[in-house]
Amino acid sequence: MESEPRVGEIGEQALLALVQSFCPAEWVGDDAALLAVPPGELLVATSDVLVDGIHFSDRTTTAEDAGWRAAAANLSDLAAMGARPLALTASLSLPREQPVAWVADLYRGLAACAQTYGTAIAGGDLSRSPTVAIAITALGSVPPEGILRRSAAQPGDALVATGPHGASRAGLELLLHPEAGAGLSATERDAFIRAHQRPRPRFDVVQAVAALRSEAGDRPLAAMDSSDGLADAIWQLCRASGVGARLQRQALPIPAAFASWLPPAQALNWTLYGGEDFELVLCLPPELAQALVARLGPTAALVGYATRDPAIVLVTDCDEPPQTLDLSSSFQHF
Amino acid sequence: MESEPRVGEIGEQALLALVQSFCPAEWVGDDAALLAVPPGELLVATSDVLVDGIHFSDRTTTAEDAGWRAAAANLSDLAAMGARPLALTASLSLPREQPVAWVADLYRGLAACAQTYGTAIAGGDLSRSPTVAIAITALGSVPPEGILRRSAAQPGDALVATGPHGASRAGLELLLHPEAGAGLSATERDAFIRAHQRPRPRFDVVQAVAALRSEAGDRPLAAMDSSDGLADAIWQLCRASGVGARLQRQALPIPAAFASWLPPAQALNWTLYGGEDFELVLCLPPELAQALVARLGPTAALVGYATRDPAIVLVTDCDEPPQTLDLSSSFQHF
Repeated sequence: MESEPRVGEIGEQALLALVQSFCPAEWVGDDAALLAVPPGELLVATSDVLVDGIHFSDRTTTAEDAGWRAAAANLSDLAAMGARPLALTASLSLPREQPVAWVADLYRGLAACAQTYGTAIAGGDLSRSPTVAIAITALGSVPPEGILRRSAAQPGDALVATGPHGASRAGLELLLHPEAGAGLSATERDAFIRAHQRPRPRFDVVQAVAALRSEAGDRPLAAMDSSDGLADAIWQLCRASGVGARLQRQALPIPAAFASWLPPAQALNWTLYGGEDFELVLCLPPELAQALVARLGPTAALVGYATRDPAIVLVTDCDEPPQTLDLSSSFQHF
Repeated sequence: MESEPRVGEIGEQALLALVQSFCPAEWVGDDAALLAVPPGELLVATSDVLVDGIHFSDRTTTAEDAGWRAAAANLSDLAAMGARPLALTASLSLPREQPVAWVADLYRGLAACAQTYGTAIAGGDLSRSPTVAIAITALGSVPPEGILRRSAAQPGDALVATGPHGASRAGLELLLHPEAGAGLSATERDAFIRAHQRPRPRFDVVQAVAALRSEAGDRPLAAMDSSDGLADAIWQLCRASGVGARLQRQALPIPAAFASWLPPAQALNWTLYGGEDFELVLCLPPELAQALVARLGPTAALVGYATRDPAIVLVTDCDEPPQTLDLSSSFQHF
């Protein structure tokens, strides 16, 4: 692959043309993109940076998957606010020796994820840098009555996880150590790897909540995404809302295939602290929570309740004393 | 300074709290920021990445100035679209050994620039990285009749530069080589250095154009900012609009203090290709252009006219043949 063209060789105009070929023509070519926010809706904005070797790696992630994940992580933050996507901007930092094909593959993944969720890439920026990094801003809109906030949880609310947790962590393990999980079926392996490489922002949950929320009257509802793990999401929701939580060990959304693969303590660890599943964790009046879980199907789970007591505890069906949730295992960016 | 705290030492929560102390409380603490776009206006979005050692350097730029410049560069792209600012998001990539004080200074500069132009920072993201980088997204809004686009220039339009060009390049030279420009007064030196460290996005020009544009009837007007140099801005406007340009050498906005400091060829070079002045270059009907220059004062200049002939030529008052504008000196990012 000695002759593979590098970004430093093709010139800035050619690189820009390549990148812009993945963007709608009406959104590029000017100093900024022009976008229409639906009348009466609020703008929702979130930004993220993914750095080579820290957030993604050639060992486990193709450029196309890195692009999908970067888009999905930011779209997931829009879903956590109850919003629908308007556009993504993507800025790349690249060394001169980065292969041009890598850039095209990255944008292919970004564009595929954006398109899957009804949006597109509205330009961005290309910078030279010793370190490969992807900076994404996702823009969305939300009607005022549809806003989901971390601070809206109330004691007595039910906590809902919209899908299995730990699957992305399991997929990473299988990519790093292909010899792991020897007892898993090919379907199970593929599902874990796909959960890691192609996470899905849960805009379907936003729609389901909007359809069901009349049952909650006008009260605001709480949500956040579980990008930094299920335990972190619950902790952040509780902290922002001034409540605690009582979680049922047996109700946690542990992927079914963990039972025959992992010791129970490790299965629990990956489910609570694995991260990057990009599900939503919501805090809702119990009837609404039950209706939502029924609509989302068996992988969604009502995992516990918000409490006036500020502690976050994990209880079992057995006679064991409740455990206080440990956050020291959560992902720390620094 | 051995004991100066580093970002890797204070923990993510403390670093996040530091950064969020520079942001309005209502814009942080959730998965995304909620913003109101004025009714009937379009959203304008632009993103940029600034990389340590490439776009800024400790040799010439304090962290506070790097923050100001990062904000100003993105706000300038909003001004180039005719927009007013709504918010900035800022995402930082930092090594663990980066001083905490550097992060605070950077945010101080970002927030000062945002505040000067009536906006603020709506959160962002912190990532570990071997390379320091700042990714900014600026969000603004524009009424449909106020949009400025690169593609709107027409033959016969006058080209306006809203201020001197080359001043930022001169400031960089004085920072890198303090012995240079020995004949400059202290006021002149300070002005050049300030042009480099504290560029000003020209929202005042947006207001002036809006106030004057009824004279243009309903036709769209053309603009872009001169971040990559005056020559590049003229070239991009011409290319996007399918026109050429005839520029007057004597009308170019060369800073007055260049005359006693630089040989004419170098003065011309810095003015055309220096970059980072963050002025606007507009292409307007001649009467509107004259009214705008009169309103902006003597540092603004009517530098030439758009032509049906696609060539971009520089003519002098003497008998020399017209020169074709050379773009090979423009800043190339790769």
